[in-house]
Amino acid sequence: MTLDLHTIAVFSVVEFSGVAAGALAGALEARRERKYQYDLVGVLGLALITALGGGITRDVLIQKGPPLAFMDLRYMLVAFGAGIVALLFGSSAGPRVLRVIWIADAASLGFFSVAGVSRALNAGLPVLAALILGLITAVGGGSLRDVVMGRTPRVFEKGEPYTIAALLAVLVFLVGDRLGWDRSISTTAGAASGLVLKLLAARFKWNTPAVGFHAE
Amino acid sequence: MTLDLHTIAVFSVVEFSGVAAGALAGALEARRERKYQYDLVGVLGLALITALGGGITRDVLIQKGPPLAFMDLRYMLVAFGAGIVALLFGSSAGPRVLRVIWIADAASLGFFSVAGVSRALNAGLPVLAALILGLITAVGGGSLRDVVMGRTPRVFEKGEPYTIAALLAVLVFLVGDRLGWDRSISTTAGAASGLVLKLLAARFKWNTPAVGFHAE
Amino acid sequence: MTLDLHTIAVFSVVEFSGVAAGALAGALEARRERKYQYDLVGVLGLALITALGGGITRDVLIQKGPPLAFMDLRYMLVAFGAGIVALLFGSSAGPRVLRVIWIADAASLGFFSVAGVSRALNAGLPVLAALILGLITAVGGGSLRDVVMGRTPRVFEKGEPYTIAALLAVLVFLVGDRLGWDRSISTTAGAASGLVLKLLAARFKWNTPAVGFHAE
Repeated sequence: MTLDLHTIAVFSVVEFSGVAAGALAGALEARRERKYQYDLVGVLGLALITALGGGITRDVLIQKGPPLAFMDLRYMLVAFGAGIVALLFGSSAGPRVLRVIWIADAASLGFFSVAGVSRALNAGLPVLAALILGLITAVGGGSLRDVVMGRTPRVFEKGEPYTIAALLAVLVFLVGDRLGWDRSISTTAGAASGLVLKLLAARFKWNTPAVGFHAE
Repeated sequence: MTLDLHTIAVFSVVEFSGVAAGALAGALEARRERKYQYDLVGVLGLALITALGGGITRDVLIQKGPPLAFMDLRYMLVAFGAGIVALLFGSSAGPRVLRVIWIADAASLGFFSVAGVSRALNAGLPVLAALILGLITAVGGGSLRDVVMGRTPRVFEKGEPYTIAALLAVLVFLVGDRLGWDRSISTTAGAASGLVLKLLAARFKWNTPAVGFHAE
Repeated sequence: MTLDLHTIAVFSVVEFSGVAAGALAGALEARRERKYQYDLVGVLGLALITALGGGITRDVLIQKGPPLAFMDLRYMLVAFGAGIVALLFGSSAGPRVLRVIWIADAASLGFFSVAGVSRALNAGLPVLAALILGLITAVGGGSLRDVVMGRTPRVFEKGEPYTIAALLAVLVFLVGDRLGWDRSISTTAGAASGLVLKLLAARFKWNTPAVGFHAE
């Protein structure tokens, strides 16, 4: 694996856009909540949980030292900064801002999944476990936020195929890796597949159906 | 401790029946849920959380490397397979199927508690901490599932003496261990005690009472 | 850092009063709950989670071995003992008892934050991460209890400036540490600042405001 400086720069932009998008989405969700009335601490706390919770959960499960988000402070600073922005300017966030957040989140979804898989594989975990840890990296933060807000994770409910897009990204990456592609290629291909699936699903309203008895 | 191959085989059957029972119970619970409408990802996710969440929590707390359920893939494959079965055939699960799941779960309850205690003792934890970790192994998966589904853990509520059966199993195991019994004997005795208590409690409707003020 | 025996004794009294206060508060909260009817296991479980959950979460995130609360049994015994007391005598807990619990909790809030920061710094984490881990130590147990009881953490909602008092304690401690104060001094100053802020906030009804859109 050789990553030239240009690739690293592109990946960093994608990654930290994703962290910022997660924090913004979490903070705006907290501000929009009607059941609980969150204060400053709640909004910032939920911003951090949404942005960093997935990677922290992954690192706690892998157990090779403190979570990356605690050792490399850029994660916390970006998440914290985005949370502050949402606190200060969140009340004027119109549909266009939400759209930008949605796209940054969609673009980073696959990237986070692939980053999670790589990290788990590097730590010596078997492929199936790495795959699960990739999905946890991608959807864990939002899910933790949902549970902390007193509801079930949205990614478990019928609707947008969020986890399936993350799974596609992971599978494309793993196939590319197996085929001996350079890791910058397989990472890009994986992340792009996830993004494309999310865009197609939004465009053509592909939704996962409920599988409960009550839906039969 | 000498476990002959026959004992190991019996223990494996009990253990993986328990994993399968947990996954089936979790998936069926998700399908039966009325407040949220789970999709395929939700049903499989809740199956994995129910089946593996207790052991994973234990291993994260013990901190001797990645959880067993991530390193020994049989756990994940059995849980995943049972989740798929519940997805495909769950809608025709009648009272007889639920009864089989109940028995497999009851038979494995004590076994999981004892396995959790052993693992914690082997990692050098004190007996009281090991006892708590044994209970977490046994009831943690179902409790995590309950919280992820937006409710309090059922094992904390009045009713079936689930945790008390797990506690009995642990105590019998620890006494046997202290008396120098072979570990296959003390494990079997512990697991059997838990099962017998659950069967008696179901037969004679022994329930734990509420201790809240509102119940006074 | 030199802690004489007298200082260690004072710190231990503050710390274990705090553990007991957390367990009492958790158990009484469980007994007072109306949505769920907790049994003996639920009340004791919620007492342990409230008292020890913050420190355990911190230690799981720091990843330097099993949580302190599992290795030093005094934590578990104090929490367990306080839980039993709340079970036996909780129904006669009047406003005076609740007031004593409130004060023990307020006195220990800053202490726990500072203890959490110290432990994280000793483990080699950067200051910002240590600060967050200090706050998690102080407010994590109560928050975990809230989530397990099916609601959002109270420290995230408008009202008492609980987390802000913990943050003040941490900042005073870090400034003192940077100025080269003896750690027993900076710990005491930090913990005292948190207590004073909590007392002033209660006296003058300083509350954090909601920042949600619905509050605008």
